[in-house]
Amino acid sequence: MTSPTAFENTVAHGDSNVMATPFMKCLIRLVRAQDTHGAWEGKSNTDLLADFIVTKEQRHEMPIIGDPDPDVIWRLQIFYTCVGLGIEERSGLLASSIVTMNPEGFGRVVLTTGRLVLLSKTLRDVHRFGFETLRKLADAGAKLVDDAIATIEAHPDVARAS
Amino acid sequence: MTSPTAFENTVAHGDSNVMATPFMKCLIRLVRAQDTHGAWEGKSNTDLLADFIVTKEQRHEMPIIGDPDPDVIWRLQIFYTCVGLGIEERSGLLASSIVTMNPEGFGRVVLTTGRLVLLSKTLRDVHRFGFETLRKLADAGAKLVDDAIATIEAHPDVARAS
Repeated sequence: MTSPTAFENTVAHGDSNVMATPFMKCLIRLVRAQDTHGAWEGKSNTDLLADFIVTKEQRHEMPIIGDPDPDVIWRLQIFYTCVGLGIEERSGLLASSIVTMNPEGFGRVVLTTGRLVLLSKTLRDVHRFGFETLRKLADAGAKLVDDAIATIEAHPDVARAS
Repeated sequence: MTSPTAFENTVAHGDSNVMATPFMKCLIRLVRAQDTHGAWEGKSNTDLLADFIVTKEQRHEMPIIGDPDPDVIWRLQIFYTCVGLGIEERSGLLASSIVTMNPEGFGRVVLTTGRLVLLSKTLRDVHRFGFETLRKLADAGAKLVDDAIATIEAHPDVARAS
């Protein structure tokens, strides 16, 4: 018998509301926007985000050091783009994100608006980028948006400086 | 008869002091630091920076659209690293730079310190990156450092915020 998947866990815990949060709705919209040939039309939203989920067991099975493939880099970029859109939606300010990465999966992500740095994070182990559950994905995204909004509120003039 | 080179022009105009400015001394130090095999030991400082110079004539001969080669990307990164070091030297604050670029030579450079964006610039025509003369190279670098210092002085708390 195999252990239940992250989705089965999510459903088992009655956490279906997670897909209705602003961050997850944005993420689903962004992923669907990339489906230029309609290949994912029949997929449910949870199936669509399946690759964002990396359970503890899956993480243990992955090599500690590995080169990230284009798919995981794409998911990482979508995730931070979604954080940027969340900030824009709540603050009305355009947030731009830059992601740099070397082929070994080490890099940096920076989000700025005006003269203000909203987020600056070192990226490591990008080949293992993912979240244990959909709830943790939603919470991580929402927290980054919340933190950025708090930073804007602390320095409103710098956020609007050109 | 060929037209005089940028260096011959520089020397002809008695502009030898340009190499003694803080920005140029830093740039020379950075370039020499990459000379791990001592291949450039016999080169003068002006020869060392020769490829940073693109005269009007040379620019006209270059294609308008072109893919930047690794050497020009390397020079661009050294240039902005040098701006970052100049900021650090004068402010005592660590400035970190991020450069992103697509293979067509369009990208962005961002320099930050603390929560403050010191420089955010769109990069275009990177395959033609260069300056008409050594003096213009020195002035461009010094101006970016000056502007960043002015930004830090305008927002000292944000520059020191974590």
